[in-house]
Amino acid sequence: MTLTELPALDVAGRIDRLRERFGEANIDALFVTRLVNVRYLTGFTGSAALLLVGPDDVLFVSDGRYRDQAADQLAAAGVPARIEISGAEQKRIVHDAAAAAGYGRVGLEAHGVTWSQQRAFASEWFPGAELVATEGLIEGLRRVKDAGEVARIRAACSIADVAFANVRPLLAGRPTEIDFALDLEFEMRRLGAAAMSFEPIVAAGPNGAKPHARPSERPIEPGELLVLDFGCMVDGYCSDMTRTVSVGDPGPEARHMYEVVAESQRAGRDAVREGVDCAAVDKACRDVIADAGWADAFLHGTGHGVGLEIHEDPRVAATGKGSLAAGYVVTVEPGVYLTGIGGVRIEDTVVVTPDGCDILTGAPKELVIT
Amino acid sequence: MTLTELPALDVAGRIDRLRERFGEANIDALFVTRLVNVRYLTGFTGSAALLLVGPDDVLFVSDGRYRDQAADQLAAAGVPARIEISGAEQKRIVHDAAAAAGYGRVGLEAHGVTWSQQRAFASEWFPGAELVATEGLIEGLRRVKDAGEVARIRAACSIADVAFANVRPLLAGRPTEIDFALDLEFEMRRLGAAAMSFEPIVAAGPNGAKPHARPSERPIEPGELLVLDFGCMVDGYCSDMTRTVSVGDPGPEARHMYEVVAESQRAGRDAVREGVDCAAVDKACRDVIADAGWADAFLHGTGHGVGLEIHEDPRVAATGKGSLAAGYVVTVEPGVYLTGIGGVRIEDTVVVTPDGCDILTGAPKELVIT
Repeated sequence: MTLTELPALDVAGRIDRLRERFGEANIDALFVTRLVNVRYLTGFTGSAALLLVGPDDVLFVSDGRYRDQAADQLAAAGVPARIEISGAEQKRIVHDAAAAAGYGRVGLEAHGVTWSQQRAFASEWFPGAELVATEGLIEGLRRVKDAGEVARIRAACSIADVAFANVRPLLAGRPTEIDFALDLEFEMRRLGAAAMSFEPIVAAGPNGAKPHARPSERPIEPGELLVLDFGCMVDGYCSDMTRTVSVGDPGPEARHMYEVVAESQRAGRDAVREGVDCAAVDKACRDVIADAGWADAFLHGTGHGVGLEIHEDPRVAATGKGSLAAGYVVTVEPGVYLTGIGGVRIEDTVVVTPDGCDILTGAPKELVIT
Repeated sequence: MTLTELPALDVAGRIDRLRERFGEANIDALFVTRLVNVRYLTGFTGSAALLLVGPDDVLFVSDGRYRDQAADQLAAAGVPARIEISGAEQKRIVHDAAAAAGYGRVGLEAHGVTWSQQRAFASEWFPGAELVATEGLIEGLRRVKDAGEVARIRAACSIADVAFANVRPLLAGRPTEIDFALDLEFEMRRLGAAAMSFEPIVAAGPNGAKPHARPSERPIEPGELLVLDFGCMVDGYCSDMTRTVSVGDPGPEARHMYEVVAESQRAGRDAVREGVDCAAVDKACRDVIADAGWADAFLHGTGHGVGLEIHEDPRVAATGKGSLAAGYVVTVEPGVYLTGIGGVRIEDTVVVTPDGCDILTGAPKELVIT
């Protein structure tokens, strides 16, 4: 599927769904400063914008670089905002709009504004209002993906699949971790990815025992466990996948580690379905690994949401709150890490459905490659 | 110069220089949460750490991933900090240290903590102290670069120079802006850059009239003005350079634009020297462009500091405060942008000296290439 064939995003209804949350948050309006959330609510893809969402009005403010783009993208998305373009007058524009509307309680994204910004907003932008610290109002909405969003994540996953298949033969040449990471990254970019969704993890042998190892100058040797965790972005949406492979037979202990993690990962995928607690998916993975005696070697949570950001709500972890709903896109990525020996992690990105899940990451799960 | 030949950074004295600023900031201690500032003060290059700097003590906190790396890097830098490694207990560790020391006024980096963090710090981390909003205490120190820092910026600039020379011949093949941006990026990475310092700008013809254009699918045609603004990172430090070229003669109007901007850029470089006001450098560039009748077509400031971040203090602009000091690294990048026609920008990164400046960006400034 080419980018031009991606189905449209369903942007228009999002602001009304946000407004439904104003009551519980006890706010009259929300001042949206996290750019990714402005994008989610309006379809605007530029690098700078502010959004003041009131009960009836929406004010969108950006600068002169985005005069045409803002008008085009908001119209295309069907978002009926008042668009104001200004470099120097943004504060006055927002101030006057909030004052004219008489908003008494204005929510800020407390996790997305700096303390400096909050102080300036309180004293200069919204002097007549009480600022309210909100957390995750829009991120909560973003958990459920529409068909257009899933299509973009799927396209990003497909690019990662194809890129991996294309560069896999290079492993026979004993590249360094850094060089193979570059090969993987370049191939995803050549295939149309706009960017990486995070810096690829390419961790062979003992380096694989660190869940967040950075690629090193060390050559990847035959018979070593090699953890590959990578993803890319398509039209703003991320993919995320981990595969563990070995060039040739890594030996019985490594094969056993792999089988345990593979079974854990299957158990996690099998547990995913609408209505299941996030913590229950984590437990399904963790129990298999604990049964093998490696409870302490599974050093992280089972997964996380994926979308406009690489790590989103919900957390799929023992301490993760809430349950899965249809349309959530989450990772299932258990791992075992043995210091001095190496690591195994297997990760899919899946869409939650009423009956289970659809797996978006299609690369084969074969340990031994040649 | 290979990375291993880079001269050492002079990290050890930085914390004492920071302490000299505690008085004017009216704080007993500073809680450093901006990772780039933790790196600057300690030499630590990991992805997560906190630093509590008191008048006599330094507490460094990171998690289990960085147990060895933190110890090694702080020792190598000669930073005598107490290192604590914990995932779940970071709050308690910092709380107990601040309470035991009896700090009354603890500074936060108000521009680097979210409002959420500030609220948690106030109520849970430092309940016995008054939190003070500080701005740019460490960023102010970072303006003057030591020899090790300049060497890293110079190395990053050299990679960009060589990459540009290597990929320039590809322009004869009419690549799209996106493809040429990828070529440039891949070449910088192949030459050893750890990352881009920002997404390259490759803007041909009318796209060049937008100072921050993003690469498009449009082919770069002969005779068009092509603005190339790019840079990379070496050992944490950024480079930044803009060149404007044309494959073949772009015609008399474009040549005139280029000559005016080139003269403006020379005037800016000639104005740079220790003690000169930042605003005076901006005026030197702006006057040349105004004399040509394009005052309104120079849409941005003249430059900015470059270092661990691509945009640092000082701002070299009409509203820029303060003057240049020896060791500052700044860009000089005037431009003219004519809607529907195109743009010209020429940018060097320079080190300020007592008598003028050293230019770190060496790529030739030739408009017409073949």
